[in-house]
Amino acid sequence: MAKQEDLFKNVISHAKEYGYIFASSEIYDGLSAVYDYGQNGVELKKNIREYWWKSMVQLHQNIVGLDAAILMHPKTWKASGHVDAFNDPLIDNKDSKKRYRADVLVEDHAEKILQKAQKEIDKAKKRFGDAFDEEQFVATNDRVVRYLNERRDILKRLGDSLTREDLKDVKALIEELEIADPETGSKNWTEVRQFNLMFGTKMGASAETSSDLYLRPETAQGIFVNFSNVQKSGRMKIPFGIAQTGKAFRNEIVARQFIFRMREFEQMEMQFFVRPGEELKWYEHWKEERIKWHYSLNLGEENYRFHDHDKLAHYANAAADIEFNFPFGFKELEGIHSRTDFDLKAHEEHSGRKLRFFDPEMNENYVPYVIETSIGLDRMFLAVLSSSLKEETLEDGSSRTVLKLPAILAPTKAAILPLVKKDGLPELANEIIEELKWDFQVQYDEKDAIGRRYRRQDAAGTPLCITVDHDSLEDRSVTIRYRDSMLQKRVKITELKSLIQQEIDFKSWLKA
Amino acid sequence: MAKQEDLFKNVISHAKEYGYIFASSEIYDGLSAVYDYGQNGVELKKNIREYWWKSMVQLHQNIVGLDAAILMHPKTWKASGHVDAFNDPLIDNKDSKKRYRADVLVEDHAEKILQKAQKEIDKAKKRFGDAFDEEQFVATNDRVVRYLNERRDILKRLGDSLTREDLKDVKALIEELEIADPETGSKNWTEVRQFNLMFGTKMGASAETSSDLYLRPETAQGIFVNFSNVQKSGRMKIPFGIAQTGKAFRNEIVARQFIFRMREFEQMEMQFFVRPGEELKWYEHWKEERIKWHYSLNLGEENYRFHDHDKLAHYANAAADIEFNFPFGFKELEGIHSRTDFDLKAHEEHSGRKLRFFDPEMNENYVPYVIETSIGLDRMFLAVLSSSLKEETLEDGSSRTVLKLPAILAPTKAAILPLVKKDGLPELANEIIEELKWDFQVQYDEKDAIGRRYRRQDAAGTPLCITVDHDSLEDRSVTIRYRDSMLQKRVKITELKSLIQQEIDFKSWLKA
Repeated sequence: MAKQEDLFKNVISHAKEYGYIFASSEIYDGLSAVYDYGQNGVELKKNIREYWWKSMVQLHQNIVGLDAAILMHPKTWKASGHVDAFNDPLIDNKDSKKRYRADVLVEDHAEKILQKAQKEIDKAKKRFGDAFDEEQFVATNDRVVRYLNERRDILKRLGDSLTREDLKDVKALIEELEIADPETGSKNWTEVRQFNLMFGTKMGASAETSSDLYLRPETAQGIFVNFSNVQKSGRMKIPFGIAQTGKAFRNEIVARQFIFRMREFEQMEMQFFVRPGEELKWYEHWKEERIKWHYSLNLGEENYRFHDHDKLAHYANAAADIEFNFPFGFKELEGIHSRTDFDLKAHEEHSGRKLRFFDPEMNENYVPYVIETSIGLDRMFLAVLSSSLKEETLEDGSSRTVLKLPAILAPTKAAILPLVKKDGLPELANEIIEELKWDFQVQYDEKDAIGRRYRRQDAAGTPLCITVDHDSLEDRSVTIRYRDSMLQKRVKITELKSLIQQEIDFKSWLKA
Repeated sequence: MAKQEDLFKNVISHAKEYGYIFASSEIYDGLSAVYDYGQNGVELKKNIREYWWKSMVQLHQNIVGLDAAILMHPKTWKASGHVDAFNDPLIDNKDSKKRYRADVLVEDHAEKILQKAQKEIDKAKKRFGDAFDEEQFVATNDRVVRYLNERRDILKRLGDSLTREDLKDVKALIEELEIADPETGSKNWTEVRQFNLMFGTKMGASAETSSDLYLRPETAQGIFVNFSNVQKSGRMKIPFGIAQTGKAFRNEIVARQFIFRMREFEQMEMQFFVRPGEELKWYEHWKEERIKWHYSLNLGEENYRFHDHDKLAHYANAAADIEFNFPFGFKELEGIHSRTDFDLKAHEEHSGRKLRFFDPEMNENYVPYVIETSIGLDRMFLAVLSSSLKEETLEDGSSRTVLKLPAILAPTKAAILPLVKKDGLPELANEIIEELKWDFQVQYDEKDAIGRRYRRQDAAGTPLCITVDHDSLEDRSVTIRYRDSMLQKRVKITELKSLIQQEIDFKSWLKA
């Protein structure tokens, strides 16, 4: 655990040091749970977005894109259920006036009980040393067994109570467990009430004429309300998909874990419209397609797992998450949901417009069923960044920090380095840049010794270093160094373009 | 004028019919001054954004990107001046309770006077027929001269009154001109007051702990607050630039002209940091660079003009607009501003942090000066779309609608068309798609006669049609048809990739 926390801290500080992620408005001490992407972060994010877009839209004749606005008609969110049901259970402490998420208070309480069990284990481990069999101890020590059972019961009761309409049971649980305000110790709580997570705003100038709007809490609804526009103007036939990337906003009360849960975030979503009755076939299809997409980036197949939902949302008849092994454990990265005809039907009802497809083969008009694939771009960014950051010990005993980003996603594809700052080497290096820059993001660096520059590019995630030395002036050749293997080879300057292209070829990556 | 209005209406309906732009939340009767980009619109917008990004960031070693969040610390907008001064002058009618922009009321009044003059001209034209000399008439007819003078005086007085702190003179002008509520005729007005154009929202759950935020009204400030983060982590040296694309929001009272003035829009901005005293040299440099960028797209150099500002904003010491000939006349498309050290200094004062650069050559620490280039992505979209839409009469007397988008920006690069839907032609067409789709956005279309399909692709803006016929099965050749010239030539299937590449080569376009 300690090691994981260290890794996470390293990721966060590395992200800042190398221009990937800064706290938003940092000079004003930051804005909680909002982040800015720096000069390298913006390129990595763009490249992930593009890798997804090409895979989903460009490669599929029956999937097209869309870019709906963040501001939508407020009835959209009535129809989607967000106005009535997109809530977190909140509780106030009457003495401290502090507000908490009721479920998090209970979860934190359960976590403390787990820590008590861990303490018993640690004590025993110290006492028995090498001979200690942790599994046996956990199974047989009365106190540990009691703690673990207690924790399990609490979490089960919490889960049950949250699915009810009223939240009295959550309040009762907090009182029974005697949970106190973590900051003041007071147990004087209000009732638990639902708090809507949408950010509100007002459009228009005057109180009488202005309308209450929301910042969209998800991009999906922009696709559903445009279903007929796209289907008709694009002459699309079922089955077909509409893909979209864009910002969404959630007024999270407890936003944690860096860019994993932000108040402003970006989604990459695809809604695939199918014949009623065929949705589960397509659900399986997209589960398979999406996990293949993830595997193609070589972040390690062992870092992914499926989590099939037992409890389904009211609109779904099947749902699974693709979880990733983040520095804080396996957590949701992408969701694949069989949303039935819930959304289109709801918009039909609230708008009075037909959202149907006339299927010439069936000679029938129907509301299509929908399979959704929805991935958090920022979460994908964190998955790529955290699994790529490595501390390596080299043969000579020294160590290096290297960001082993998939080359196709790396912000800078190649750094061009003159061995020394004179003798015409910078000029030749810049000549090479002038040639390569039309096709690739490349970087010039002449400062410090060459070894130090290699380390800097390793840490920044640049897959290739191209070194210009004195021989280069004669033989028009340079040394190309590969980030991951650190192998070097001598190549002609005229070969560089195709060598770089080879490292980032979309077809090779996706088929890998 | 009538012809221009028709053109504009054609652009709007064509944009909808071909999946470029839909009204936002159209099934709920739309959201005023907000639009969604359809399946072709999203690609055109992406391609414009990418053309800008590559030109600005990828080609310049000393310009890097950034992607700052839409939500920023509220002090940002205090420092930038937006909280205090980003206002429109509004006036209410006490009887009708309607609200108007005071300056627009006066402008519309002046417009009516212009129409009176026009009426006199039209009458005279009718009377004198071919012999009519309009210029002479306008200069010598007492009534027309009086109208034109009256209008000029009103607009001048309006301009003067708007620059004052209090808006009493605007109110006085409205009363003196006896301007009535256009809907009810009432002249019972309130005072004129300033209305802030920023969208507000609240972050956090409770009244006590939540903070008032704004949706950013411009992307520039995200760059300024990150100046030191980027400069230090990117080891940037003056002069250098930070580029950013992203959404901004303005609660416009009178939003008009389709996607020209929207409440939610996207900017493409670059802030270039330079030594104090060198800013005007760089200002000239960027004016030149930016107009060259525009010219490279071949939308017609006659459609652009510079408008140098006489009255400068408080933060600027030089400013010019690049105006484009939109269907409603020449209007601002891009701004190039010499912003001095106003922004960085303001953030220094409000944050207490130093935003300086240590210049090793000068051995001096200073607040850099800034040249900004700021272009509206949606406006660029409208410029490209409206100037590309042509109605052409062909040799045989028939006509065609063609969207002559620059090929590098076109959503679909090539349509692959089997001459008939049988005999193995669809299979060969799909084989070609499987080959090309890794590198280009391509489209398959087998419906309707080939001529009709050509027309459809012309109207959608696809630069190339590739037709597979019976000979293709034998000679592995196809017919390639060029949208603009309608010329056709026979080429080998194996040549297609490089032929398409040639049409959209970035280097050739930008250097054009």
